Amino acid sequence: VVNASPDLRQQILDNGALHPRRGKRDSPIAAVLLTNGDVDHIAGLLSLREGHRFAVYATRRVLGILQENSIFNVLDPALVDRRPIDLGRGFAVTDADGQPTGIHAEPFAVPGKVALFREDPGAGPGYGTEPEDTIGLALAAGGPAAFYVPGCAEVRPDLATRLRGAPLLLFDGTLWRDDEMILAGVGRKTGRRMGHVSMSGPEGSLARLAGLGIGRRIFVHLNNSNPALLADSPERAAVTAAGWEVAEDGMRIAL
Amino acid sequence: VVNASPDLRQQILDNGALHPRRGKRDSPIAAVLLTNGDVDHIAGLLSLREGHRFAVYATRRVLGILQENSIFNVLDPALVDRRPIDLGRGFAVTDADGQPTGIHAEPFAVPGKVALFREDPGAGPGYGTEPEDTIGLALAAGGPAAFYVPGCAEVRPDLATRLRGAPLLLFDGTLWRDDEMILAGVGRKTGRRMGHVSMSGPEGSLARLAGLGIGRRIFVHLNNSNPALLADSPERAAVTAAGWEVAEDGMRIAL
Repeated sequence: VVNASPDLRQQILDNGALHPRRGKRDSPIAAVLLTNGDVDHIAGLLSLREGHRFAVYATRRVLGILQENSIFNVLDPALVDRRPIDLGRGFAVTDADGQPTGIHAEPFAVPGKVALFREDPGAGPGYGTEPEDTIGLALAAGGPAAFYVPGCAEVRPDLATRLRGAPLLLFDGTLWRDDEMILAGVGRKTGRRMGHVSMSGPEGSLARLAGLGIGRRIFVHLNNSNPALLADSPERAAVTAAGWEVAEDGMRIAL
Repeated sequence: VVNASPDLRQQILDNGALHPRRGKRDSPIAAVLLTNGDVDHIAGLLSLREGHRFAVYATRRVLGILQENSIFNVLDPALVDRRPIDLGRGFAVTDADGQPTGIHAEPFAVPGKVALFREDPGAGPGYGTEPEDTIGLALAAGGPAAFYVPGCAEVRPDLATRLRGAPLLLFDGTLWRDDEMILAGVGRKTGRRMGHVSMSGPEGSLARLAGLGIGRRIFVHLNNSNPALLADSPERAAVTAAGWEVAEDGMRIAL
């Protein structure tokens, strides 16, 4: 979460977001909001270690995963504040010192699954899945809320209703079709098994999220098997024709 | 560990080590040998996840850290074999299928410390340190052994004796001087506190590892505060004058 005040936004434009501003080892990251406990959502914390002050917000379920994995103690508790969040309860995002970042967040449950590394192989997929396993976030900086939903197993009517008329949506773009990893010979799992709705098909995100009056729609979290990653593919053309964008490294978004 | 057979070496030269040879998601990594349980030694395993078959060798102490951190279950036990190693006992490194890699390894204890994230803040530095916390490796592929010692708190006479006459040494180059992070204002810890001997000074690695007839000496694991990283620094000139090299990304070493 990058503070959205006009001053700070100008600093980012002037200096580049990657230049430390308040010391040799400073970082513009004031807070991290986790939407899932899987390795691709939490392992990045291990690169922010030692001496970097910030806040981590997550459900109690996901904080429990950090708690039970001692490796996350590289985040010094004296510097990194872990803060539980409640589904449906909005909050002002503050930095490690409790100073406001200017961003308001509201977490909500989306269909998902337990983290891969906590699956019980004997219990079948979905074992132990709870509403706190995967969440979406409504994020606002004074204006109407943008939505961040990087993992979502199914677009149900309640989610479509929630997203209606939003100015901005960042959404799970893992796969183009449910069985593409199997077809490509790079995996044994379907998207459904991994907790990700596909872009295509009658139940896909392109169809289910059409006609909701969402301003800007950006796919994030794309798997490298997804042909929509290729700028010249028919799948990318279909994504673009449907009014969506595909996120790129270094993309900047101002709320 | 890259297999050292002439055929495979030729393949690597022909194809580049990063091109998959046996499938779309293949990797040339047949085995991983851990020398320490700290985050910079084990977190990389989380990037080798799902579907990659290899073997992990480590002391029981370090395997225990993987065991107590469920996030490492992203390494599917059906694909990734965890193998305990004993100090002073050499072994043939094999891949996940038990096929020889052509490399023989022998682990030995070096002065080190417990992993940062398992320190007991109330117990002071060094609490719980055991010989299995930090090891060095003698690695041979038919010829005399090369040595890999990426973390070492002190060069004691027994280590110097062990390294005498070795054709190749990769050694802990974390810091130039013990208090450089404090002087630079980027940290509160000395090298000694972090379990790393410095390059410079009468007890430093340059002095203590001189005159041992080691063929090629390469510093690895350099911290970004170490001025020897800069190609035009006086410290780099001193390193070079002493007959050492500084490792670079993409460096290849044939045993």
